[in-house]
Amino acid sequence: MTNKKEIIAGIIIIGNEVLSGRTKDVNTSTISTWLNTLGITVKEVRIIPDDKKKIIDTVNELRKNFNYIFTTGGIGPTHDDITAESISEAFNLDYGFHKEAFSILERYYKPGEFNTGRQKMAKMPIAAKLIINPSSGAPGFYVENVFCLPGVPSILKSMLGGLNNVLVGGDPVLSRTLNLRTVESEIAKSLSDVQNQNIDVEIGSYPFFKAGKLGVSIVLRSTDQKKIDICNDQILKFVKIKDIEVVEIK
Amino acid sequence: MTNKKEIIAGIIIIGNEVLSGRTKDVNTSTISTWLNTLGITVKEVRIIPDDKKKIIDTVNELRKNFNYIFTTGGIGPTHDDITAESISEAFNLDYGFHKEAFSILERYYKPGEFNTGRQKMAKMPIAAKLIINPSSGAPGFYVENVFCLPGVPSILKSMLGGLNNVLVGGDPVLSRTLNLRTVESEIAKSLSDVQNQNIDVEIGSYPFFKAGKLGVSIVLRSTDQKKIDICNDQILKFVKIKDIEVVEIK
Repeated sequence: MTNKKEIIAGIIIIGNEVLSGRTKDVNTSTISTWLNTLGITVKEVRIIPDDKKKIIDTVNELRKNFNYIFTTGGIGPTHDDITAESISEAFNLDYGFHKEAFSILERYYKPGEFNTGRQKMAKMPIAAKLIINPSSGAPGFYVENVFCLPGVPSILKSMLGGLNNVLVGGDPVLSRTLNLRTVESEIAKSLSDVQNQNIDVEIGSYPFFKAGKLGVSIVLRSTDQKKIDICNDQILKFVKIKDIEVVEIK
Repeated sequence: MTNKKEIIAGIIIIGNEVLSGRTKDVNTSTISTWLNTLGITVKEVRIIPDDKKKIIDTVNELRKNFNYIFTTGGIGPTHDDITAESISEAFNLDYGFHKEAFSILERYYKPGEFNTGRQKMAKMPIAAKLIINPSSGAPGFYVENVFCLPGVPSILKSMLGGLNNVLVGGDPVLSRTLNLRTVESEIAKSLSDVQNQNIDVEIGSYPFFKAGKLGVSIVLRSTDQKKIDICNDQILKFVKIKDIEVVEIK
């Protein structure tokens, strides 16, 4: 089996409301989970303010280091929506009404309702390609490897499927989770031994509290199912010796 | 009224489980909300993998640009907990058993239960200062302006209060939220005018869906209550003219 090159992505969450703590970010989880299925691994997320210079600098830094960059937020109709303008500057592209986006929005709204605020959502790099929005009309867009999505989680979610055939992924990352009735310190040494013998498998250990009981989730991640199976068996071996209850394997 | 200097912070979330989408980050919101009350504003968050070089580089880049840095995650007993070791390297400090931390953990566990895994939680920069953990024993620590907290949200939350007298804040950022029964594009132009007349107030606009109805939250943020009041009145003026229902002001 030949491994394809690892395809990596970065996410830029744009929004003062996330930095202030008012809004909890859920878009990272949505985008990462979706990218996993395409064989693309998110390696870094940055949450930054609605600040044009900061957006430009962050986009220009990250787009060189990752195969794909996804931004969320700042593409609505109000004064604090400055992502489209910032992306235009980052790529040194003309910012203005995007013909196709304008025409989509014109058809979406009833006659007389397509006001200045709504028209602003058609302003972007005029050379951008569109990301169709099945839930609320206003499209996202992408320039080269930078994909700009809205901040509203339900709308963002509805737009991802449209990119499945645009992105080129690698081998999908497979995972297995073993939920054990124990605490981390009881298995730390044994788990470390398993990790040392299986350096190609990413082994994560996460304590959980469920129905009032403590437990540990061991998460095995690799592009190779056989390597996961070997790890899995080695863990079950020490779990049996230590007489630890296996709650669930999934 | 003289304004104190703005005090700014960065957050570094360390953890593959957040990047993979398996776990949704809630610690950013907890830390930001708490820092707001101390007059400290979070200006950037980075979510990065359990990777020593990446942790060291990120800490060393951000600690120069912010008054305070908070890291979360990676200070438990397992092989993937590498934050303490990475911070030691970032500051070029000796990594080993921290006397006070070791003694806290020794007292916390029953005789015979203080095993190798648990002892690892006392390993950190030996010159670090401790952050007391009222809920599960194992302390966090800080070196200069970098504060290292655990990833488990309930434990992290219980530790923040212990830092209230360690951090030096600025003027607290005050906020007011106006929930309006409208859509963003209806108010975009008027809101933009208010922003242009009140450049010292940060005005954010966020669509919401509640009980099946669309609305917009306008959030006003400033260290100066009077400036918020002026903005508030200007918004209520155009809201009245446009005959928009005010759902709630808080």
